[in-house]
Amino acid sequence: MAEKEKLTLAVLSGDLERALAAFMLATTGASMGMEVSMFFTFWGLNIIKKNEGSIRSKGLMRKMLNFMNRGGSKRLKLSRFNMLGLGNWMMKRLMKDANMPSVDEYITMASEMGVKLIACTTTCGVMGVPAEKETFRSEVQVMAGAAYFLNEARKSTITLFI
Amino acid sequence: MAEKEKLTLAVLSGDLERALAAFMLATTGASMGMEVSMFFTFWGLNIIKKNEGSIRSKGLMRKMLNFMNRGGSKRLKLSRFNMLGLGNWMMKRLMKDANMPSVDEYITMASEMGVKLIACTTTCGVMGVPAEKETFRSEVQVMAGAAYFLNEARKSTITLFI
Amino acid sequence: MAEKEKLTLAVLSGDLERALAAFMLATTGASMGMEVSMFFTFWGLNIIKKNEGSIRSKGLMRKMLNFMNRGGSKRLKLSRFNMLGLGNWMMKRLMKDANMPSVDEYITMASEMGVKLIACTTTCGVMGVPAEKETFRSEVQVMAGAAYFLNEARKSTITLFI
Repeated sequence: MAEKEKLTLAVLSGDLERALAAFMLATTGASMGMEVSMFFTFWGLNIIKKNEGSIRSKGLMRKMLNFMNRGGSKRLKLSRFNMLGLGNWMMKRLMKDANMPSVDEYITMASEMGVKLIACTTTCGVMGVPAEKETFRSEVQVMAGAAYFLNEARKSTITLFI
Repeated sequence: MAEKEKLTLAVLSGDLERALAAFMLATTGASMGMEVSMFFTFWGLNIIKKNEGSIRSKGLMRKMLNFMNRGGSKRLKLSRFNMLGLGNWMMKRLMKDANMPSVDEYITMASEMGVKLIACTTTCGVMGVPAEKETFRSEVQVMAGAAYFLNEARKSTITLFI
Repeated sequence: MAEKEKLTLAVLSGDLERALAAFMLATTGASMGMEVSMFFTFWGLNIIKKNEGSIRSKGLMRKMLNFMNRGGSKRLKLSRFNMLGLGNWMMKRLMKDANMPSVDEYITMASEMGVKLIACTTTCGVMGVPAEKETFRSEVQVMAGAAYFLNEARKSTITLFI
């Protein structure tokens, strides 16, 4: 049996449009029979943080950063035309009109299609969240660092940094 | 005859500097004998929208978004130092001093060098423009979705997400 | 002897988090035995500009741009939560807490590990700095253009655009 082609995505950005692009590619790749890995780092960790519940983080600095930067797939914003939330609201309306899944729905979809979601442990600290499974949604299966990502990337047909 | 090496660029950003970087790489790649594809998505669609004429879009929401986000290669802005347009104006002066083509000139050049320009149909809807040939410049030959991009990318020596 | 695997990074962004991500990957790649090249262009040139001393640039426009955009590894800012510098200060505190090197330390480390640092000569002009060795830190060994980058990329196992 031939080995599956691999697609690896590093998601550093927490911008709504980049998160959407990443999941479009991941789910399309999976539907084309590729083995897909998504590695979330820096602001990208916001995408896979739990939407509900409070994350206990130690230290005043982490608590503050965590409060300012709550994250979660439902709080992602466009990089432009934010306009006090109007741009985001419009984009979400247009996504619904175009029958495009929300980031939340994309995460479930991707996970069900076998896309592997990985949280970068090296950058949890500087983003003010504990590097523990409890910080993230249940769909996130792996906690790993940069070496893990490069090892996936070196075996991939396509690797993108988003 | 040996097959040509392929270079595939996904352009999600509509920032002036990223558009310039994309076209520098595309035209350099073409001059090195590579077969180059550029896939424009999300804000990147602004780069290849027509500069003149009004785009008819249906629905109030699309009309509003289209008005706020007129796009076109001549309206791209720097991601930083915009300063009410001063930064953009300075950058464009410095580009002229350095004999660097404008984005407009780069599009013509790339097209004449055989670079394939592709508009992402999946994101036209959420960017408020009709997914039709008439939305875009004449240099744009293909309208396609994420599967088309991944299919180009899997056959490419170099794929970059810009 | 088998040839070394190559990792090539194009760094267009001057955002603190993207600079950190680039150096994490570069140093991890080097420690895994890869041959690593980093190609700095546009705002990325800020990362490798000298921190001290004044850069003599010709022409009022270049002088102005150079003044507004002083650059240097110690002046990089987060893309979000800048908040008059508070976000940057917090991030740097959290980096120290997590024993993460600063960008400054990363440059020295990368250089000592044999990572090749390249300044893009094509974009020096539009960024308002002279395309000379004196503009950049001593760790920067090569001054080259887009063709150089594509030539590295075509021989690489992994190429990322950051």
